[in-house]
Amino acid sequence: VVHFKMKIYIYTPFAEPEIQKFKESLSAKYQVIIGEQLPTEQREAQFRTCEICYGNPPLDWLANNETLLWLQLNSTGLDPYQKLTDYHFKLTNLKGFFGQSVAETALAGILGMYRRIDHLARLQSNKTWVGAPLRASLHLLSKSKVLILGSGAIGLKIKDLLSGFQCNTTILNSKTITQLADYLPNTDILIAALPETKETIGLLNKAYLTMLKPSALFVNVGRGSAVDEEYLIKILEENKIFGAVLDVTEKEPLPKESPLWAMENVLLTQHSSGGWAEEAAEKVIFFLRNLARFESGEELVNNVDLVKGY
Amino acid sequence: VVHFKMKIYIYTPFAEPEIQKFKESLSAKYQVIIGEQLPTEQREAQFRTCEICYGNPPLDWLANNETLLWLQLNSTGLDPYQKLTDYHFKLTNLKGFFGQSVAETALAGILGMYRRIDHLARLQSNKTWVGAPLRASLHLLSKSKVLILGSGAIGLKIKDLLSGFQCNTTILNSKTITQLADYLPNTDILIAALPETKETIGLLNKAYLTMLKPSALFVNVGRGSAVDEEYLIKILEENKIFGAVLDVTEKEPLPKESPLWAMENVLLTQHSSGGWAEEAAEKVIFFLRNLARFESGEELVNNVDLVKGY
Repeated sequence: VVHFKMKIYIYTPFAEPEIQKFKESLSAKYQVIIGEQLPTEQREAQFRTCEICYGNPPLDWLANNETLLWLQLNSTGLDPYQKLTDYHFKLTNLKGFFGQSVAETALAGILGMYRRIDHLARLQSNKTWVGAPLRASLHLLSKSKVLILGSGAIGLKIKDLLSGFQCNTTILNSKTITQLADYLPNTDILIAALPETKETIGLLNKAYLTMLKPSALFVNVGRGSAVDEEYLIKILEENKIFGAVLDVTEKEPLPKESPLWAMENVLLTQHSSGGWAEEAAEKVIFFLRNLARFESGEELVNNVDLVKGY
Repeated sequence: VVHFKMKIYIYTPFAEPEIQKFKESLSAKYQVIIGEQLPTEQREAQFRTCEICYGNPPLDWLANNETLLWLQLNSTGLDPYQKLTDYHFKLTNLKGFFGQSVAETALAGILGMYRRIDHLARLQSNKTWVGAPLRASLHLLSKSKVLILGSGAIGLKIKDLLSGFQCNTTILNSKTITQLADYLPNTDILIAALPETKETIGLLNKAYLTMLKPSALFVNVGRGSAVDEEYLIKILEENKIFGAVLDVTEKEPLPKESPLWAMENVLLTQHSSGGWAEEAAEKVIFFLRNLARFESGEELVNNVDLVKGY
């Protein structure tokens, strides 16, 4: 009897503990190929013999691929796979996986700006005690009017985390975003938690940003493309808004010459918000659970339809 | 007809907007004396002609004072007035006034340490992009086991603020503090929000601190005297706990030579936690409301009995 084992290609460069977990969990039933451990020139050819893949391989590896049955992306975002017009494999992403983590960085950033954790950290580096005179420069999050753009996992989780703060929180989604201008002039904290789509690119334009009041805090934990960054920088420089917490920017890494680096009313979280110590281990667990569904023919979690775009 | 106006002495050095608010609100009925505006040598004599005072005057001004009817302290703490053995005026404090603000700094500090806002602020100062490699060093607050020491306004408010984080939160008060050793080995975040009393001084001794696990975060928003600071520094240096957020320390300002300044697993918030931009204005409002009760003979809010000690 000859046994054919399906091949699983791990494209994402995981660290040793996760690679071991993949191998231990899968080797009995599958042939596990760790892309990172192959010579570069062999990777595409090996990939093209695999039925299953975890990770975000180059777009052209997927062209004319007749073997692949299922691609589990290592991201929520679908870029650049929206460009696939003709594909025959199942496609799943990590939608919702980063909600808690991103929402916690959003809260950490807001409270950080209001309670001046960034300033206090810099004072500490300089061994400088300021003490009581700091107090009048602090603000309270409680009872703020919060406007969240995006009703995905991140937006919903931020609303959850705010539940103890007696805030007045509104979420606008793609259907209600037309009300944006009604809310902005009265918003204390504007949080963009939007995916990148045709509708969201450039959404927060000059006209909308101008409606923010001088005490408004802007938070972006979605995509940098949602905002007119040049104009955002201008209103931050002129103190026309209170400040900004930016996990994302138009260009990442943020170029050295960006004025955002030196602005005291800006906190840059360097697109770290989706991460936490157990992130990689939990990705493996997520994949193994989805693989069990694949094996039993159940519908996969986070199935994506590229024609619909989500 | 001769009108006698009661005299109100404002001891606390308020800024101009609050002084104006006092004068506007009180001048029709009272003679308002702004201590800070008097020559130093006249202050005590003027004080001793007053029926009402806002602020924390020197203890000896209160000795043999037959005129004072009511002293509204500008603090929650009663130090040094516990030393008054014989006094005939009403005494009120600001109990509860700082709860929301202190609780917000506690949350800002915890989330700051878990999402590395302090580290990100320092990277920003150096215009250094780290990005994705930061992710594995971040932690989630959600689902943590939180132990709060102190069931005053601060402790209760911290529990409120945590309500969206699915934490397992326990509060120990002076009656249940005997259970401390049962909880400590299983605590992710230990928050001291204790007043300074005979029972709390030195409470967190070596024996208790040793019970904390390596991933534990310690937060002190009460009084520095509650902790064996030398031992705390030792376990922080040896990474026997994850870190500390310290709003209070044994000595304040923290001496330049303290090792705490340079520790990356420590965040110093410089006893700023009780403050916010509207703090002074709200103190005036609090006093005016209590004054209305004083005028109508109602019981004052935050009446303190120094014999009982609270």
